[in-house]
Amino acid sequence: MRIPFETLRAEFERVLLSIGFSADRARQCADIFASNSRDGVHTHGLNRFPVFVQYVKDGLIDPNATAEQVGGFGALEQWDGHLAPGMLSATTCMERAMALAGQHGIGCVAIRNTNHWMRGGTYGWQAANVGYIGICFTNTIANVPPWGGTQPRLGNNPLVIAVPRKDGHVVLDMAISQYSFGKLMQYEAAGEELPFAGGYSKAGKLTTKPGEITESWRLLPIGFWKGSGLSMMLDLLATVLSQGRSTAEITKSKAEYGVSQVFICIKPTQGNTEQLIEQILEFSRSSELVDAEQPIRYPGESTLRTRQRSLKEGIPVDEKIWEKVKGL
Amino acid sequence: MRIPFETLRAEFERVLLSIGFSADRARQCADIFASNSRDGVHTHGLNRFPVFVQYVKDGLIDPNATAEQVGGFGALEQWDGHLAPGMLSATTCMERAMALAGQHGIGCVAIRNTNHWMRGGTYGWQAANVGYIGICFTNTIANVPPWGGTQPRLGNNPLVIAVPRKDGHVVLDMAISQYSFGKLMQYEAAGEELPFAGGYSKAGKLTTKPGEITESWRLLPIGFWKGSGLSMMLDLLATVLSQGRSTAEITKSKAEYGVSQVFICIKPTQGNTEQLIEQILEFSRSSELVDAEQPIRYPGESTLRTRQRSLKEGIPVDEKIWEKVKGL
Repeated sequence: MRIPFETLRAEFERVLLSIGFSADRARQCADIFASNSRDGVHTHGLNRFPVFVQYVKDGLIDPNATAEQVGGFGALEQWDGHLAPGMLSATTCMERAMALAGQHGIGCVAIRNTNHWMRGGTYGWQAANVGYIGICFTNTIANVPPWGGTQPRLGNNPLVIAVPRKDGHVVLDMAISQYSFGKLMQYEAAGEELPFAGGYSKAGKLTTKPGEITESWRLLPIGFWKGSGLSMMLDLLATVLSQGRSTAEITKSKAEYGVSQVFICIKPTQGNTEQLIEQILEFSRSSELVDAEQPIRYPGESTLRTRQRSLKEGIPVDEKIWEKVKGL
Repeated sequence: MRIPFETLRAEFERVLLSIGFSADRARQCADIFASNSRDGVHTHGLNRFPVFVQYVKDGLIDPNATAEQVGGFGALEQWDGHLAPGMLSATTCMERAMALAGQHGIGCVAIRNTNHWMRGGTYGWQAANVGYIGICFTNTIANVPPWGGTQPRLGNNPLVIAVPRKDGHVVLDMAISQYSFGKLMQYEAAGEELPFAGGYSKAGKLTTKPGEITESWRLLPIGFWKGSGLSMMLDLLATVLSQGRSTAEITKSKAEYGVSQVFICIKPTQGNTEQLIEQILEFSRSSELVDAEQPIRYPGESTLRTRQRSLKEGIPVDEKIWEKVKGL
């Protein structure tokens, strides 16, 4: 089933207005949720919307709070999210990082007590759309064991890097776990194995069976010990720069709220930038293919295609969740 | 065989003086090579020294060139390395990024036409030693296929993130390939299999046999498609910000010289920083262990232990390479 963008957006807006969002904020949040679904990131669009609404009802997200600057020195600022909707505060922080980059060449905004930003790529696209390089990352509740351990002590801490480009921005949006829990559950529901090992079984064997991983809670970080280290560094940076809650603290409170995030913007150097980018993409595409039908793609390449199709044919939705949202 | 730090350093200095280095520069480069071996990074200490000397003799590294600022706006600068020794220019750039961070809170220096920085961690430690957060990365010659391809088109582009800490800095220093070629060759020479798949065989199967990977040239990036994307983003950032040579251009010239690098420094926020860092490290250590004899370590944790042992008992050296260096 496919739904027009505007139908989806309007439905989100209706629900948000009903749970205490102001008109402006309902519109902005609804637009982000609908855009995430439009771009194919259903897990952080429609599919996440009911959870978001529940968090607002539970008081973990304050629809009326506003992020506020609490410290700063030159091109580096600290903000407090006051548990406002994470997408609004993330948008504000990336906007502010761009203003700082416009003034200083580079800008960095760290925010504490913020909430889940849904799809991290949103803020990479935001920066790239106005010609800035955007880098951002967030910590999360613990969901990956550290290397050498069997219990979750690290977040999957999504990392976003966006480079603006005339014919479609290059936007990496990746979590540090090889697969998300959502992905494992998709494979499990479909009765399929993962294409690559995604974690360890309870017996401590690498496995492609999603059910063994959802049982053991031993998700694999990308690159084994390397992703484990990278995840910890992102948590350290987000926590130290914002003076906010670390994955350790977030995990104590069981629900994932009050997280820490960092937004960095850089003004690209004038010069040969477009040609340099094409050179890199072309070189990558010049490799022989593993599968002649599967061309080599750059990060974010499929986003625009998915977006165009969604706008033309409607956004594919999970009917059960769509019905649920209509009933909210 | 173990050699005192000073013996190793003095020998490097002697050789560098003999191939045209000034006294100051010979001392500084010798110190970096000896320190890399001291900290256990032999691949970029003694073991790499003969290659470095050959590059100088081949004219790919100019011992008398000096990195120079060629552009800048506020806290963001572009430098040209003029093919000077990469370690000297990297040290200069991190120093400059720290000065910019001191002035603006955050600073970023991108350098083009520079050379291999040997061990990237050197510059992370440099920043952390004076209380700064340091982030740096470099592009390299192509040595990893992009996801979906079978031929090397991406660099392994080492990424360094350093957070200063009283009881030992947390320093991640990782390349984007799961294993380096050097590591594969070590396993091959020892007749051992890799603990985890490190690439694809010629037949396109994931393999733990190092010989199959050195034959196919299909090294695996960390996290499969994720590391492939991350490697490309690091090349894009380094190339665009420095307006320098991309992995594509470096690969054309066959030898790895004239690379592009980025150095970012951030002044940590005053506050609760030490406690926040300990909280993160302690939470990580609180997981049950896979192997009771193998505690969970933070990135860089073993460096100080290796350093202390090297300083006390001497630095373990590969005797063949040590003899070779003495004969240079």
